[in-house]
Amino acid sequence: MSFIDKLAAAVEKKGSSVLVGLDPRFEWIPESIKQSSLKDLNDFSGQLMNLRTHEDTDRKDAGFDISEIAPTVFCDFCRDIIDIVAPYVPCVKPQMAFFEQLGSDGMVALDDVIQYARDCGLLVILDGKRNDIGTTAAAYAKGLLGEESPWGADALTVSPYLGDDSLDPFIQTAVEQDAGVFVLVKTSNPGGGMIQNLETTDGRKIYEVVGDFVQSKALQTVGQCGYGNVGAVVGATYPKELAELRQRMPNTWFLIPGFGAQGGSAESVKAAFDEKGLGAVVNNSRGINFAWRTKAYESFGEEKWKDAVLAATKDMCNALRN
Amino acid sequence: MSFIDKLAAAVEKKGSSVLVGLDPRFEWIPESIKQSSLKDLNDFSGQLMNLRTHEDTDRKDAGFDISEIAPTVFCDFCRDIIDIVAPYVPCVKPQMAFFEQLGSDGMVALDDVIQYARDCGLLVILDGKRNDIGTTAAAYAKGLLGEESPWGADALTVSPYLGDDSLDPFIQTAVEQDAGVFVLVKTSNPGGGMIQNLETTDGRKIYEVVGDFVQSKALQTVGQCGYGNVGAVVGATYPKELAELRQRMPNTWFLIPGFGAQGGSAESVKAAFDEKGLGAVVNNSRGINFAWRTKAYESFGEEKWKDAVLAATKDMCNALRN
Repeated sequence: MSFIDKLAAAVEKKGSSVLVGLDPRFEWIPESIKQSSLKDLNDFSGQLMNLRTHEDTDRKDAGFDISEIAPTVFCDFCRDIIDIVAPYVPCVKPQMAFFEQLGSDGMVALDDVIQYARDCGLLVILDGKRNDIGTTAAAYAKGLLGEESPWGADALTVSPYLGDDSLDPFIQTAVEQDAGVFVLVKTSNPGGGMIQNLETTDGRKIYEVVGDFVQSKALQTVGQCGYGNVGAVVGATYPKELAELRQRMPNTWFLIPGFGAQGGSAESVKAAFDEKGLGAVVNNSRGINFAWRTKAYESFGEEKWKDAVLAATKDMCNALRN
Repeated sequence: MSFIDKLAAAVEKKGSSVLVGLDPRFEWIPESIKQSSLKDLNDFSGQLMNLRTHEDTDRKDAGFDISEIAPTVFCDFCRDIIDIVAPYVPCVKPQMAFFEQLGSDGMVALDDVIQYARDCGLLVILDGKRNDIGTTAAAYAKGLLGEESPWGADALTVSPYLGDDSLDPFIQTAVEQDAGVFVLVKTSNPGGGMIQNLETTDGRKIYEVVGDFVQSKALQTVGQCGYGNVGAVVGATYPKELAELRQRMPNTWFLIPGFGAQGGSAESVKAAFDEKGLGAVVNNSRGINFAWRTKAYESFGEEKWKDAVLAATKDMCNALRN
């Protein structure tokens, strides 16, 4: 089955359009996970370290090197999040940057997290914003896209500055591997407008030029559900543009960042959905991963962080359903 | 010392502006390296495999799985290239896509190659075309940039579609870590014009808008050599635009792809250099890595592939010097 039909089926089965971002940020991960990873490390190495429990700076003083446990901490944290959200959402989005930040050990952790999410029945949209030309783009695509590939992602975000011949290898591999591609079109950050909002001499803005290209590729790769295997990243933070792009790109599935921490709400993403409730997944990373650190769920406290993640996930599912 | 001053000093010391791309493509790597890696694998595992020497498809039939030896083959091949070119060129550019293609084992190989190049006294410009927003961009930057970072690159290529607030975290980290950033401005591929060549209502083309931004950041990060630690990727395949961008971006060091296989020549990149011979490095990947497979050096044959790499490197250094 094509990626987009798998995605549509998963959204219908779970009754949810929530995409849970996996953004492991070491400094915010619960202390209990760090202690457990450290214990494993100590057990493994046979060394006993003098662990202090609160400040990362204190830890460094105590001869503690974050880099030794961070990959394990990332795995354990992401696996916990996956366990909590898997019954409620169709897909997760690991952010490659946080894993790559740790060096090659971080990439081994990413590998584990992707496989674990798949094993839990979730679709995995890898957020890598990869881009290159020709056979180099094909190398990324073949490495990352599809169940049989080394990384095994169901879909990948890609960046369009290099133009159509840089996107085609991703699209071709995606179609061959029953995988998907989400092209950056109108992003959620304030600075996105610097290039994306520029108006060209034919009257279209850059994000409309890219949007039209993506829609044409969506049409060429359309599945049973009416959407194509080439989707678009369109931020929740610009609801007017989002609504206009929906009109302009009727066959394009949207991946919508910017919900929650960045300011987007259920109201601001409403226009992205068709009458069946299909057509978009809305990402939330920080607001779910670190729910107990947000105003709305702070009463749970760090000890009950898993309950906070669960509550935030269910609440977002409900908010998007109404 | 800032990255750009290290680069300028290395160019002057070696008397060369050649940037050797490290693009390990399994199917083109000499058979001798594959056999040696396979032998190591066999010695290690204690298994004896029935190796056939020519066709990869035959190998699969013989129960041989490329993925088991590819990371070792990539390491061995890149180390050989580095050994050959190190006396003659200031820097190398590993292409992350080829390593990432192999999964996390490929990233371990990349780690080794970066470190080996550094140990050989070369500056390492990592070609990742990374891009993201805010703290996520900062995660890439902190992971990849600077001698003390997990990956340890001296510089990184980045893609600008997400705008200024996506580039600033890379620039900030680069400056803090004595590292550099090369922003895609006008790329070498035919499709690059799809977005980059569009004319905006203020009369500038998109690549000029990005070029102006990069020049402003180059000025803000200018080193002793007169160029900034924020550079630009400008293709050799569009010499007219390259010459215009040089006028427009007097403090911006250019990383120039598209030489050789893509059609660029010493003549087409001449305009990038100042009267001291500084201001640009010109990349060649395939034409050096796989020189014996090109018309000019095919007489060496696969057996003398190292001699072909050496000849191609020296010839390119000379061509750029004149």
